[in-house]
Amino acid sequence: MGLVVQKFGGTSVGSTERIRKVADIVARTQAEGNQVVVTVSAMGKTTDQLVSLANELTTKPPQREMDVLLTTGEQVSVALLTMALMEKGLKARSMTGWQAGILTDKVHGKARIEEIDTTRLRQSLENGEIVVVAGFQGVSSSGEITTLGRGGSDTTAVALAGSLQADRCEIYTDVTGVFTTDPRVVPKARKLAEISHEEMLELANLGAGVLHPRSVECAMTHKVPLVVRSSFVEEEGTWVKEADKMEEERNVRGIAHDMQVARIKVLGLPNNTESFTRLFGILAKKHINVDMIVQSEHEDERMDVAFSVHEDELDQAREALQEHEEELGYIKVLSETNLAKVSAVGAGMVTNPGVAAKMFTTLSEAGVRIKMVSTSEIKISCVVPKDQAAEAVRELHTAFDLDVKEPAKEKALV
Amino acid sequence: MGLVVQKFGGTSVGSTERIRKVADIVARTQAEGNQVVVTVSAMGKTTDQLVSLANELTTKPPQREMDVLLTTGEQVSVALLTMALMEKGLKARSMTGWQAGILTDKVHGKARIEEIDTTRLRQSLENGEIVVVAGFQGVSSSGEITTLGRGGSDTTAVALAGSLQADRCEIYTDVTGVFTTDPRVVPKARKLAEISHEEMLELANLGAGVLHPRSVECAMTHKVPLVVRSSFVEEEGTWVKEADKMEEERNVRGIAHDMQVARIKVLGLPNNTESFTRLFGILAKKHINVDMIVQSEHEDERMDVAFSVHEDELDQAREALQEHEEELGYIKVLSETNLAKVSAVGAGMVTNPGVAAKMFTTLSEAGVRIKMVSTSEIKISCVVPKDQAAEAVRELHTAFDLDVKEPAKEKALV
Repeated sequence: MGLVVQKFGGTSVGSTERIRKVADIVARTQAEGNQVVVTVSAMGKTTDQLVSLANELTTKPPQREMDVLLTTGEQVSVALLTMALMEKGLKARSMTGWQAGILTDKVHGKARIEEIDTTRLRQSLENGEIVVVAGFQGVSSSGEITTLGRGGSDTTAVALAGSLQADRCEIYTDVTGVFTTDPRVVPKARKLAEISHEEMLELANLGAGVLHPRSVECAMTHKVPLVVRSSFVEEEGTWVKEADKMEEERNVRGIAHDMQVARIKVLGLPNNTESFTRLFGILAKKHINVDMIVQSEHEDERMDVAFSVHEDELDQAREALQEHEEELGYIKVLSETNLAKVSAVGAGMVTNPGVAAKMFTTLSEAGVRIKMVSTSEIKISCVVPKDQAAEAVRELHTAFDLDVKEPAKEKALV
Repeated sequence: MGLVVQKFGGTSVGSTERIRKVADIVARTQAEGNQVVVTVSAMGKTTDQLVSLANELTTKPPQREMDVLLTTGEQVSVALLTMALMEKGLKARSMTGWQAGILTDKVHGKARIEEIDTTRLRQSLENGEIVVVAGFQGVSSSGEITTLGRGGSDTTAVALAGSLQADRCEIYTDVTGVFTTDPRVVPKARKLAEISHEEMLELANLGAGVLHPRSVECAMTHKVPLVVRSSFVEEEGTWVKEADKMEEERNVRGIAHDMQVARIKVLGLPNNTESFTRLFGILAKKHINVDMIVQSEHEDERMDVAFSVHEDELDQAREALQEHEEELGYIKVLSETNLAKVSAVGAGMVTNPGVAAKMFTTLSEAGVRIKMVSTSEIKISCVVPKDQAAEAVRELHTAFDLDVKEPAKEKALV
């Protein structure tokens, strides 16, 4: 008997009608001879509504209480989906994060899963039940309710699949798979049949939005076979696999973009390694994710360091730098918003030096200003002005020969 | 330093604006030199909305999943109230039922609190925090989320006060206290300054609605001083006290009514004690609360037993009787709905035989048909047709000299 973990996002459980359809998919998977664990997000706009309530009371909602508040959204979803499954005559049982044994660290708002105690899950599965687990949430060793932050339900699903050694993890979403770029930006985007973990990780990190990077990382570590598919359209999705199981026939597999980028420049830092350690140590302590980093030495004793962060974390980052002004010994901090990042991703890129050249040529011919550049083995990213990002993505998609002849029809169903 | 437990109902936390006012009351209580534990219900109509969602999916929502669903309502309230308190610069911490150590039995939907492990509560209080506990919910020994059923938040508050040996338990509600009868039915109803646990218990049981009987029972057992007061009007409430600490100057203290009564008649049961044991054993096993019981022998070998139940439990009770038809050996089961119960309550009644006579005379002069009668040491109850109940209450209120000259003004504020 197989074991399948399925994850359904907020749109997929947006109404009781849709929950019933999710129940059909789950039931079918069980009928095919599988044990099934399902993870769900909060219904549609629930999370936004809860955030609004909090904002009516305070401008700085304490994160511990936000976690208590927001986790109710997924708890509602699991109860309702379980009812829908039982109404179909199936044995099912809902579990909150703490009931499912999802143990996290203590960082409210963006906790990491440390361990999953699968005792209750296994008991329930052995009892013939479909287990419906609240996504996005866990419990810390001190019994506090935590949330996993953005894309948390994906992470829950993959972590469950890893711990239970599931045969596969299916991520159901409102798109039919992973595309060469965002179909809302480029109508000629093409759906990929498969993609490597590494490529997906870059695409996810770069804002492709279908899968959260942490979930991909987790899938890679635990070697969980992952498939992204639509909960609305019956159609093959995109498999996310180990690279060596794929053919690498293309240089660039996709163009990603992230529209919420801010850049910080720290000018006149002491020119030594300790400066780096201190600077990024301070930011790490505040749990601020730093993305691209560019350093430039302009004299012997001083250097400038520029880095990009999510624009929501800009204020927090600036505050942290200000608090430690003396310790860091910089001269000035500058910041810029209204930026975006566009990236070309592909496992074959490292062996093809022409890719970077083509990227810069394409952007420069399109009149797009490049503000920062960073490269890795499988991607090249450029920070550009936000208002030029969409055009940049379209031009790169064409330049790297990713366009389909016929725009796919199923993209904008939801 | 004193320790006060306060409970705020759904109307009191019906909006963020009202939650802010609740925070003011809590803050004031702390400023007066008390440690404070607060219990809250779900916001306004939240519970109804969640029930509707469940009903969209199934006609018979499984009780375990209903508990998972409904407890989210109180969880939202505690997070929001805690935020409101923290926004005022106070230290506060929310706790769900399981976090607060509220251990119950396993009867989903109407669990009983078995024990409260106050470790976390005490730690938090010692830490100078106001603790905001989700009412109405607990956790069973097998880690299942349970709810306490109707009036559960009152019970949570009183049980917390008992376990923590609080100096008092304040029940904030949308009325200013306990009245001689329902002010919506009798505008001349008078607010009582104090009432004994026993009287309150009868009034609560009889549908006075201000306090749930289980909470009163719990207050009596643990000798918790209880006060019922308004969260909207600053005014002395009604103290619920031990009887021997009160003067018993009146015969009848209040007139209660319950508009949701159904009667079941089981005809032709074998005339022996085992019949009773079996009949009420079967109902107890289904957790159906039987209220008044009247037996009549009409021949040597057969007897009839009539009893009243909450009208919501009528179908379940009839089903249970049908299932055990053979075992019980009755001839026929009849049932009647659209009934109500009106009761006169007073600790002094047992020593005054004139009360019953006055009650029957009053009802008969008003043309009210009496369907069943039951008496205890401190009350006399009559089941009457629902459409005559309001008139019956008004007539009895006058007859027992409970009317005020001037109708109170604050009653219908909410």
